[in-house]
Amino acid sequence: MKPDGLLMIPGPVQVHERILKAMSRQMIGHRGAEFSEIISFCHENLKPLFGTKREVATISGSGTSGLEAAISSFSNVRKMTCVDNGKFGERLGIIAKRYTEVDAVSFRWGTSIEIEKIEESFENGSEAVAFVHNETSAGILNPAEEIVKIARKYDALVIMDAITSVGGDEVRMDDWGIDVAIVGSQKCLGIPPGLAAVAFNERAWDFYNEKCPFYLDLAAYRKKLGDNQTPYTPAIPLYYALEEALKIINEEGLENRIRRHRIFSKAVREWANEAGIELLAELNEYSRYSNTVTAMKLPEGVTDKDLRGTLKSEYNITVSGGQGELKGKIFRIGTMGNIGKRDVLATLGAVQDILMRFGKAKPALNAATEVLREL
Amino acid sequence: MKPDGLLMIPGPVQVHERILKAMSRQMIGHRGAEFSEIISFCHENLKPLFGTKREVATISGSGTSGLEAAISSFSNVRKMTCVDNGKFGERLGIIAKRYTEVDAVSFRWGTSIEIEKIEESFENGSEAVAFVHNETSAGILNPAEEIVKIARKYDALVIMDAITSVGGDEVRMDDWGIDVAIVGSQKCLGIPPGLAAVAFNERAWDFYNEKCPFYLDLAAYRKKLGDNQTPYTPAIPLYYALEEALKIINEEGLENRIRRHRIFSKAVREWANEAGIELLAELNEYSRYSNTVTAMKLPEGVTDKDLRGTLKSEYNITVSGGQGELKGKIFRIGTMGNIGKRDVLATLGAVQDILMRFGKAKPALNAATEVLREL
Repeated sequence: MKPDGLLMIPGPVQVHERILKAMSRQMIGHRGAEFSEIISFCHENLKPLFGTKREVATISGSGTSGLEAAISSFSNVRKMTCVDNGKFGERLGIIAKRYTEVDAVSFRWGTSIEIEKIEESFENGSEAVAFVHNETSAGILNPAEEIVKIARKYDALVIMDAITSVGGDEVRMDDWGIDVAIVGSQKCLGIPPGLAAVAFNERAWDFYNEKCPFYLDLAAYRKKLGDNQTPYTPAIPLYYALEEALKIINEEGLENRIRRHRIFSKAVREWANEAGIELLAELNEYSRYSNTVTAMKLPEGVTDKDLRGTLKSEYNITVSGGQGELKGKIFRIGTMGNIGKRDVLATLGAVQDILMRFGKAKPALNAATEVLREL
Repeated sequence: MKPDGLLMIPGPVQVHERILKAMSRQMIGHRGAEFSEIISFCHENLKPLFGTKREVATISGSGTSGLEAAISSFSNVRKMTCVDNGKFGERLGIIAKRYTEVDAVSFRWGTSIEIEKIEESFENGSEAVAFVHNETSAGILNPAEEIVKIARKYDALVIMDAITSVGGDEVRMDDWGIDVAIVGSQKCLGIPPGLAAVAFNERAWDFYNEKCPFYLDLAAYRKKLGDNQTPYTPAIPLYYALEEALKIINEEGLENRIRRHRIFSKAVREWANEAGIELLAELNEYSRYSNTVTAMKLPEGVTDKDLRGTLKSEYNITVSGGQGELKGKIFRIGTMGNIGKRDVLATLGAVQDILMRFGKAKPALNAATEVLREL
């Protein structure tokens, strides 16, 4: 007998039964009052997760569609700085290149952003910066507030990819001074993939580029916000899911939720330290470890297939490997969304079991349970 | 007690219980073998619905995202002819304008396309044509084969919006010579909104425009077809839904399914004729009535609210009104997807009941049941 699968990757995440059930409801007209109420509830309840009192729009599409909507709609700049210390930072630059000149400020994946390099980019004429808050490919939390501080000196627009932080870690757009932020549905919000949300302030519209794609034109989405509608037919079941997910988040309370995410990732890190597994992220004074995903180096002599293949076939647990240049070199455990501490413990136990067969880990589950007890 | 709602609009359509149930399955990794099998099944089984042996890619987004993917990816032309005899034809031109020069060949909404005008556009230097196969805003089936014949004389690319015909009416891309066609999930395929599929042949790539949006770049989707993956995280529950919907379609048989759709729309038209309700569409030698949606004029003295409002509040049945310049002038009954003849009959009975209260319809349900008996 194979047990049900357990997804411990940085999205798509395991989805709560209540949300799965909500998704199986019959369709209703997307232009009627009943659906407008759902949209209104979703947009209003997303705002505190972004830390904004401004506007939030939702797009039927993956997180990438939300990123491109944000970047393309607000790309009326001479040059955009795209900060790259991981796969998703790199992607920001690839997207932005289709709309404006890009100054890609790159760091070795897994290492931390140096604020000075970003300032240089502004000195060289950049009028906007796009960066990833929580870089899941490397398990690093980039320094949002520090980046805004520099950007403000140059009156630059700030776009933050918060796809894997909103709903799981602290995001305070308004306080920090972020102009535009994006979240994906299948991460810390805990619903399936297929929806993105973009939050934006008034200032962002000074950078509006009418040459953005029709489907991703945030001006069209904004125009419909007042009527609680979307410009194009929305992915109705995912709105059902989002509504239920936001109810779950409100019941847990955002502060508790963020604390839970922090404890889960700390448990993973403490286990790794004790077990003798090296974390990928190299921190500097500005950066932190991600609170929603942990990237660890594969011990020498253990292949991706050895670890992740066995984990899948024996335990039916899925964790992530490395992407791009990190492929085959690391593994990543996502601790996002509506999971419990038993899921964290089971995953670490299984990973430890497999690594111990190669003589590459010490028994260290106690280090994890000690942290988990804080919950 | 309010009965369950019944959606009789040209999408989103009522979704079959089997499909709703499929959607409530737990997430699986979108890069794993299990999900690749689902993608492979979906793409292979969509092909016969398009009438193609070529390639089909799926995009997580509404039908509009599929249209823009097709138009933007294949817009490397000096000029594109966009045929407009309804709201969705108009939209093709609006989208195409972001990528190339557009020659909008427009006809009064509800009237038929004149092939001669399209030929003129080619004479004037157009290198591509985009048109809507089944114009749901007006209830007209536009003449695909005739348009291709003219386009071929000028070696022009042919893009067909088949969003509301694929899966419900005959589409024979390869036989007709269509280069690119698009379908939306929430129409005749019978699943919720949030997925689009684009079919394309080899020839389309001669017109590839690398300046298309990143998220909608069909070259990226094509690159992943061989691995049965998608370039960006797919809307997993909608793939579950599509898989189940395609199984339902295969069980019914495509020919039977198309016949059923034709009988349903014929039943609506025969009822309208007998009841004294005027159809909107004005046909010429090339055009036909839509086989998936019927547009009818609101009788004088009956407002949109009188008819559709009462239908919703008393019967909990939703039909569509007019869009754009046709707002308040027409109503539209969609007969798409996995519905039964009881749904058609109930809708016509309810519409007739309300119109009779205004003295604006004659009892004519027999005209419908006689047609439905052909099933």
